[in-house]
Amino acid sequence: MSNNGTTAAVKIIPLGGLHEIGKNTCVFEYNDEIFLLDAGLAFPTDEMHGVNIVLPDVTYLRENRHKIKGMIVTHGHEDHIGGIAFHLKQFDIPVIYGPRLAMAMLEGKLEEAGVRDRTELRSVRPRELVRIGSSFIVEFIRNTHSIADSFTVAIHTPLGVIIHTGDFKFDHTPVDGEHYDIQRLAEHGEKGVLCLISDSTNSEVPGHTPSERSVYPNLDRIFMQAKGRVLVTTFASSVHRINMILELAQKHNRVVSVVGRSMLNVIAHARNLGYIKCPDNLLQPLHAIRQLPDENVLILTTGSQGEPMSAMTRISRGAHPHLKIREGDTVVFSANPIPGNTIAVVNTIDRLMMQGAKVIYGREQGIHVSGHGCQEDQKLMIALTRPKFFLPVHGEHRMLVKHSQTAQSMGIPAENMVIIQNGDVVGLSTEEIKVVGKVPAGIELVDTSGSGIVSGKVLQERQQMAADGIVTIAAAIDWNGKLMTKPDIHLRGVVTTINR
Amino acid sequence: MSNNGTTAAVKIIPLGGLHEIGKNTCVFEYNDEIFLLDAGLAFPTDEMHGVNIVLPDVTYLRENRHKIKGMIVTHGHEDHIGGIAFHLKQFDIPVIYGPRLAMAMLEGKLEEAGVRDRTELRSVRPRELVRIGSSFIVEFIRNTHSIADSFTVAIHTPLGVIIHTGDFKFDHTPVDGEHYDIQRLAEHGEKGVLCLISDSTNSEVPGHTPSERSVYPNLDRIFMQAKGRVLVTTFASSVHRINMILELAQKHNRVVSVVGRSMLNVIAHARNLGYIKCPDNLLQPLHAIRQLPDENVLILTTGSQGEPMSAMTRISRGAHPHLKIREGDTVVFSANPIPGNTIAVVNTIDRLMMQGAKVIYGREQGIHVSGHGCQEDQKLMIALTRPKFFLPVHGEHRMLVKHSQTAQSMGIPAENMVIIQNGDVVGLSTEEIKVVGKVPAGIELVDTSGSGIVSGKVLQERQQMAADGIVTIAAAIDWNGKLMTKPDIHLRGVVTTINR
Ligand SMILES: [Zn+2]
Ligand SMILES: [Zn+2]
Ligand SMILES: [Zn+2]
Ligand SMILES: [Zn+2]
Repeated sequence: MSNNGTTAAVKIIPLGGLHEIGKNTCVFEYNDEIFLLDAGLAFPTDEMHGVNIVLPDVTYLRENRHKIKGMIVTHGHEDHIGGIAFHLKQFDIPVIYGPRLAMAMLEGKLEEAGVRDRTELRSVRPRELVRIGSSFIVEFIRNTHSIADSFTVAIHTPLGVIIHTGDFKFDHTPVDGEHYDIQRLAEHGEKGVLCLISDSTNSEVPGHTPSERSVYPNLDRIFMQAKGRVLVTTFASSVHRINMILELAQKHNRVVSVVGRSMLNVIAHARNLGYIKCPDNLLQPLHAIRQLPDENVLILTTGSQGEPMSAMTRISRGAHPHLKIREGDTVVFSANPIPGNTIAVVNTIDRLMMQGAKVIYGREQGIHVSGHGCQEDQKLMIALTRPKFFLPVHGEHRMLVKHSQTAQSMGIPAENMVIIQNGDVVGLSTEEIKVVGKVPAGIELVDTSGSGIVSGKVLQERQQMAADGIVTIAAAIDWNGKLMTKPDIHLRGVVTTINR
Repeated sequence: MSNNGTTAAVKIIPLGGLHEIGKNTCVFEYNDEIFLLDAGLAFPTDEMHGVNIVLPDVTYLRENRHKIKGMIVTHGHEDHIGGIAFHLKQFDIPVIYGPRLAMAMLEGKLEEAGVRDRTELRSVRPRELVRIGSSFIVEFIRNTHSIADSFTVAIHTPLGVIIHTGDFKFDHTPVDGEHYDIQRLAEHGEKGVLCLISDSTNSEVPGHTPSERSVYPNLDRIFMQAKGRVLVTTFASSVHRINMILELAQKHNRVVSVVGRSMLNVIAHARNLGYIKCPDNLLQPLHAIRQLPDENVLILTTGSQGEPMSAMTRISRGAHPHLKIREGDTVVFSANPIPGNTIAVVNTIDRLMMQGAKVIYGREQGIHVSGHGCQEDQKLMIALTRPKFFLPVHGEHRMLVKHSQTAQSMGIPAENMVIIQNGDVVGLSTEEIKVVGKVPAGIELVDTSGSGIVSGKVLQERQQMAADGIVTIAAAIDWNGKLMTKPDIHLRGVVTTINR
């Protein structure tokens, strides 16, 4: 008992990642010491005109920068590491611990942003423990997810162990052979877990998420049937998927050209660290494969979400400088559209088909699986860790609610869990979990082209002009207030043809 | 043989409805006589700033107005009748034939637009035949769809019979007891159908579309379990669904308040014509149900697609003047989000949940079924009509392609079908089907608030200002070109904080 007979609570403060998928950013605090777990970015919705990146408001961290002892990264996805370079412009982080692949990707980002000197990057191995400040010891537990080298963490605190799942699924046949270390989870469950903080992405989906490996035979069949060139698009960071695609390319005697900066970047790092294994001559630049027969060519690109500037979208518009669709091409969408992107994706598919490509897409094809566990995976996580308290994260509100209902169905009392919002300060003691306060947790919108923050006011002005247009009137007035000439009136985006 | 030994072709010219779902508008032409089949509108995508309504370019009809002999309406959905009032401002249509419900809805629209005198509306009954011009006889064949009083049509032409399915599914247990007149379809199939023009909406979906009636027991169970008020949202035009909801409200002793102008409008017409049957005192205005116990109240609203100005969206924002969510309310989404609306819908659901409502949504609940047939329905249509030629319509490009593949799997040769775009002129003779020309078929964007057409230029300007903002500089210059005062600079929607 410290603090005059009351046990200090561990504070858990998510600044992002709730009521949304994206910009996961979580603060852990105990006795004036803070560490940060992940710091991601999100991508803008359609109404956020001219915005490329959405970041959480980190006022709380800026104002408490002296308390920050370090940071933990669970894996290398943008929604977990994409915000770090921006935040380091505002406050230093003494040390960042994380998996080798994420650290390699992060290093490039920090160098590009000119903030490489504001922190120290340290790679960790499975089962490694690191001390952060005087109260926290963090243990890295290998998990399975759509990116290689991903971790669940056990946070040892003076009050007990908190398990943060990170992003996870239970994949018992992982592509890289790196199994989920469920023995460590079970051991913690046996010894006692104070609180489980768990990934809610697929809490609305019944059943188990299939193994990443389940897409292999389906891609194999598609590659076998393809007569001409094959173009495959998937998420740039889906290291396991890319690994399988490269393996299948070899099997079907196809040389691979990778198109898209982010994918080239991930592949380079993953090959360096051995997470992607392929012979050097398998990968060739576009100009080198031009003279090869079509049946010996595979093109791997970004743009699986119909992103306007991505390689696949530009190809579909006939606007890619080096790559045109031709009759006989097979285009494979090895990714499902994220809800907000559906229209962009199907429009891309339509354009590719109109140019003569055979396009393989859709759930029935079995060429994409999620990297996040469904309800049965979430139950297994609770069964292994047997937590006293439960905190669903990484999801929109109704997903958190569903996840809490799943936890209740397994016997965790409703009063032992909270559904929280970004900025809620969760107080976790050995006796209870509850919201004890609130810190600023809005969003900051970044227009990277102008390298500035798009304020709420600017955004509102843009929305208004988009809806109505703008009229400018320039009038020269003399000292007596009389017009000197006919005023100059300019319309932009204004409807003038009232009748036709 | 006419025209110097060559058989004149029937021309089929879709001005809308292809490469999209919406604004279905199809021209039939033979020997200088034209009739129009349906004329709908579409709703704008997110990039169409400040636009409420999308219409097809009807230049071809305007320029050939003297050829127009009449029009056929298949059913009362907005994507089939929503454009007529706008078009009548540009050209007259001597007569419009269609189902009673659609004609009633259309009459109101034409009066509102002040064009009621530009045409004559004539209601038709099942199996009725109408002559249009000297070459066409159109037969109305009752079909089953999500709106009551819907038709498939058989178009008798000098070259043979063309079946246009309209929007359809095969619902063998229709809510209103009005069965699909498959005997007439079969009889045409037996006698010989020259061409089938068929609804492609669900051509990517395997299996049969379940009967509309299948949602009844699921809604029944939800209404039974609800302790407090029940709010249900569905499409305003889903007459069968509304009928079942009203019946279930009676069964569970709930009085119904309908909120949302379009739904009130459809219900009024459908009750007038007997398509919705319910006692007068079942329906009450909002203020009259205020004193009733919560368990005796059901509120039926628009907004199932998260439309920004709809009743349900405003309720979810706490912005509805007469209706606030309270703990214990059950909100039922009896509609699936159309792809482009998913984000708006799930955000609405999240907001309702955060205000304390229990929200029932999602495919697993069995509380929504499509009004359009899936692959097996589409096969049955082909099997019944045995057409020589096949023309898939009412769908985006890849849906048309899938539908044509379904037709090929049933033995129709690939050369007997065409995948067309809006504005393609299809020439149909007894010997072949092919694209023989092209007419203008762009889109016209309508900003109903300013009651004007939003041109491509205006739209482009709006998009640009939305992305970058605008800078205006007012400078007073004397005759020598020198600045007279400090120039006035105004920024709107421009990012100024480069550093922070
Ligand atoms: Zn994530
Ligand atoms: Zn992830
Ligand atoms: Zn329709
Ligand atoms: Zn319809």
